[in-house]
Amino acid sequence: MYRTVTCGELRLSDVNKTVTLAGWVQRIRKMGGMTFVDLRDRYGITQLAFNQEVNKEVFDKANTLGREYVLQVTGIVEERYSKNSNMPTGDIEINVTELNVLNEAVTPPFTIEEDTDGGDDIRMKYRYLDLRRECVRKNLELRHKMAFEVRRYLDEQGFLEVETPVLVNSTPEGARDFVVPSRMNPGQFYALPQSPQILKQLLMVAGFDRYFQIVKCFRDEDLRADRQPEFTQIDCEMSYVEQEDVLNMFEGMSRHLFKVIKGIDLPKLPRMTWADAMKYYGSDKPDTRFDMRFVELMDVLKGYGFSVFDNAAYIGGICAQGAASYTRKQIDQLTDFVKKPQIGAKGLVYARVEADGTVKSSVDKFYTQEVLQQMKEAMNAEAGDLILILSGDDAMKTRKQLSELRLEMGNQLGLRDKNKYSCLWVIDFPMYEWSDEEQRLMAMHHPFTSPKPEDIPLLDTNPAAVRANAYDMVINGVEVGGGSIRIHDAKLQQKVFEILGFTPEQAQRKFGFLMNAFKYGAPPHGGLAYGLDRFVSLFAGLDSIRDCIAFPKNNQGRDVMLGAPGVIDQDQLDELQINVVNKA
Amino acid sequence: MYRTVTCGELRLSDVNKTVTLAGWVQRIRKMGGMTFVDLRDRYGITQLAFNQEVNKEVFDKANTLGREYVLQVTGIVEERYSKNSNMPTGDIEINVTELNVLNEAVTPPFTIEEDTDGGDDIRMKYRYLDLRRECVRKNLELRHKMAFEVRRYLDEQGFLEVETPVLVNSTPEGARDFVVPSRMNPGQFYALPQSPQILKQLLMVAGFDRYFQIVKCFRDEDLRADRQPEFTQIDCEMSYVEQEDVLNMFEGMSRHLFKVIKGIDLPKLPRMTWADAMKYYGSDKPDTRFDMRFVELMDVLKGYGFSVFDNAAYIGGICAQGAASYTRKQIDQLTDFVKKPQIGAKGLVYARVEADGTVKSSVDKFYTQEVLQQMKEAMNAEAGDLILILSGDDAMKTRKQLSELRLEMGNQLGLRDKNKYSCLWVIDFPMYEWSDEEQRLMAMHHPFTSPKPEDIPLLDTNPAAVRANAYDMVINGVEVGGGSIRIHDAKLQQKVFEILGFTPEQAQRKFGFLMNAFKYGAPPHGGLAYGLDRFVSLFAGLDSIRDCIAFPKNNQGRDVMLGAPGVIDQDQLDELQINVVNKA
Repeated sequence: MYRTVTCGELRLSDVNKTVTLAGWVQRIRKMGGMTFVDLRDRYGITQLAFNQEVNKEVFDKANTLGREYVLQVTGIVEERYSKNSNMPTGDIEINVTELNVLNEAVTPPFTIEEDTDGGDDIRMKYRYLDLRRECVRKNLELRHKMAFEVRRYLDEQGFLEVETPVLVNSTPEGARDFVVPSRMNPGQFYALPQSPQILKQLLMVAGFDRYFQIVKCFRDEDLRADRQPEFTQIDCEMSYVEQEDVLNMFEGMSRHLFKVIKGIDLPKLPRMTWADAMKYYGSDKPDTRFDMRFVELMDVLKGYGFSVFDNAAYIGGICAQGAASYTRKQIDQLTDFVKKPQIGAKGLVYARVEADGTVKSSVDKFYTQEVLQQMKEAMNAEAGDLILILSGDDAMKTRKQLSELRLEMGNQLGLRDKNKYSCLWVIDFPMYEWSDEEQRLMAMHHPFTSPKPEDIPLLDTNPAAVRANAYDMVINGVEVGGGSIRIHDAKLQQKVFEILGFTPEQAQRKFGFLMNAFKYGAPPHGGLAYGLDRFVSLFAGLDSIRDCIAFPKNNQGRDVMLGAPGVIDQDQLDELQINVVNKA
Repeated sequence: MYRTVTCGELRLSDVNKTVTLAGWVQRIRKMGGMTFVDLRDRYGITQLAFNQEVNKEVFDKANTLGREYVLQVTGIVEERYSKNSNMPTGDIEINVTELNVLNEAVTPPFTIEEDTDGGDDIRMKYRYLDLRRECVRKNLELRHKMAFEVRRYLDEQGFLEVETPVLVNSTPEGARDFVVPSRMNPGQFYALPQSPQILKQLLMVAGFDRYFQIVKCFRDEDLRADRQPEFTQIDCEMSYVEQEDVLNMFEGMSRHLFKVIKGIDLPKLPRMTWADAMKYYGSDKPDTRFDMRFVELMDVLKGYGFSVFDNAAYIGGICAQGAASYTRKQIDQLTDFVKKPQIGAKGLVYARVEADGTVKSSVDKFYTQEVLQQMKEAMNAEAGDLILILSGDDAMKTRKQLSELRLEMGNQLGLRDKNKYSCLWVIDFPMYEWSDEEQRLMAMHHPFTSPKPEDIPLLDTNPAAVRANAYDMVINGVEVGGGSIRIHDAKLQQKVFEILGFTPEQAQRKFGFLMNAFKYGAPPHGGLAYGLDRFVSLFAGLDSIRDCIAFPKNNQGRDVMLGAPGVIDQDQLDELQINVVNKA
């Protein structure tokens, strides 16, 4: 036992106790005959006091310490003269009588402080030092707590956590698999799972009734800021349920997490159809922390000789409250924003509502004040508001552009407070979406997703209009979870495959394994999966998932701390009976 | 909502309620005007009654059902005429008024019963049907519960569960790695972790203080009955601890599991040194459910002209109580047993203690009754006992042979009851063991294991005698967990590497990464890891870990259900810039 107490627990009531602590030197202040050392561990910081007159030997030793040295000290808890109300242990200090240096430390490559001087690259290379920073460690503590509370809730609801294998087979469709050459089966490969989708459905066939797993999943995709090659899902499936049962269960889980972790009473979650989400927000994951809904202006603004609008397939506006004061420069920046290649709008029309209620727009020469007043009314705009309008010949694309503009305005107007949470279900997703690339309908969710019963007749007449029993949970514009009711009827599954353009033979080859299992009595079932990394980063108020992952990879898929991936020995390749080609 | 109750919950107190159930047809009995169907779900079995006179339509439909059909039924709970006290729902049945076939089922390839007619191979191929059997599902339910209780205990003790990456780098030493080619870094490979050993030590450097993780680990080894290429560890590490702290913490965890899961109050665990374990049981994981300790007989039996003993480096015996009645045939079978190549003894000497106390041995011509009586006394044998003796020119090998014989006798005498648990710590493992193959000392645990402080001087004089701060938890002859206190002092680490025969350059190349991290202030730390699969199989009373794994692999590392591993497309190989060689 190296310590009797941690660095976070001593209070005034402990004064005069003799204690032993262990930890790292956070900082050292030398003040003449006194030296003060802040000793840090996971639980907090405690001030150590060394007095030249009281104990010269220990005082002299203290003056040889450096940052991040590992100490064990014994001393007496004393009340401080100058208290620090910013820290829980700020009322006391330790009058040190014994000092034992457990380990020395070379100077770290960046400061172990909330505001560190280390850039991203060096922090990742020395991640074990970066993790010493309280602000980083707190994210991992939060992650632990969230995962634990998820398990507690689901266990109480009768879910069984079942570990599914990591070494599986390559899946048809979907993203690219990571593969693992098999030494015992030369020329053959395992794949790492993109998700346990098929295995959890098999567990339903097996009668497990309620399954979950907090599980690593893998996708060999080109990486963006918010993607990692390995990520963690809260994966769930239930039998004998309809959509309503799944939504209620997991709304309950989210409510539990918000209450226990954030102290927030989540209201009953609103539900928004996918069609409404696209209509009013131009996104299937609307950020509903702020309103600023789209208003379609086709009826209002067409036919006045402004060819851009007259030829548009869609004209839509948003009303930025109180933003009429935007300068010309600010509006030019917004125009540049929507014209960025990633967004791709051709231009931006704006209209200010003046203090007297009149409207001044960038297209005044085409519109009378009367028409502009009609627009103001349609937009529900008031004096001081700024109306921003986009148009285009592809309604869906224009809506997505307007969505980006809406989010940007939300940022600029401070409407996207990270401490405020707005959650909802987006439901009634389409079964299929058209792929220009493949020139066929593709499954929007996955091919096992069940259509809404009332839309089944449309499978024959207008499959693109069929809605699915699929749902996403959206928080603050982030899709944290999503799932569907699965098809358990072989004939319906066959029809869905046909619409996807699979012949019975192709369907059998790609999905025959699951279809075969279903022959032995598949129960109605459905489920969903949450992205744990995203869920935690939302709760932590992080912009990226990276800082809630202990050892993340960079955009090249590298762990720069471990130096992975790396070259392996030729004899290892020989054993696996594979060769590297084009070896540079 | 497909059901109002499950198949496991209805009791006499529910009589007259109208309920809806869903589940699988377990069996059907047609008895003239009545048909009875056992409906099964995860929670139990409920009897459905169909009466021709009450509802002919539903009765006729019931007679078309087959095994494993998926049903939804509504009916009234009624008291049974002939109750079945063997099942919790045995007092009631459902008088079915509505029958809805949710899915038909083809005849399963084996019976879904405790005593199934399916062999191992077919059960694994149709694992999703095998998992329907209550006896298999119960193991997975136990696994869920044990993992959950481990998390609950460790969370309460302040441990943080931190997910470490699955895509890491190849480790020096140890078993063979599974590797994953990196598409984004052609010619380079990730490795799957054999354990998070280095990462958990880095988390201690990072100040995480108490870490755990229930985590998949991977070893590409040739498989035995009790090995899987992927397996699950309860991996733990603590800072500022000595061996005593670690043992106490995890003895507490085991006590918690035994109490909560098995209702057993675990006594304070005995501790046995490795030296004693080898001396008395010939094994570092002694099965202490029964005594039958080795007695060394060198002093007693040497020097009487029996050359086998006279030339032996070790002579040891065990006393099988009450086994003097063993027939000549039984003893011949024991002799064959110890002469099996896997065990490798040259022969077996036995001695019966007759009812009158005299000893009859297979080597009577060399020994007087007086010497045999001395042996009887040394063995603490009594009338009716059978003494079994092995000898050999390699003491360690002979002890291991005697250990196998002891376990076999334990089996034959019914001393290895699966419902009885005997747990202990084996401590003071040697730091090093000699490798004939490598002709050098090897680390018995791993190279970061700390020697016992009092043995550090021996590193210079007699390293083979140095004992480590390493420990195993052994239950019923199974090593369920093990770990060590780690070296946190760079100079000591250097010396340990030297003894392992590494030059400073080799040590730097193999372990420099961790040693570099340690320069920034490593705390004293230590930990251990439990094999969850083994722990669960012990609690479940299983002979193999396979049946507590949902989707295990066979001895060829194959998942015969998924058909993994398999061949992948050439374009996938091309993207990864690898080739299969010697493709048959």
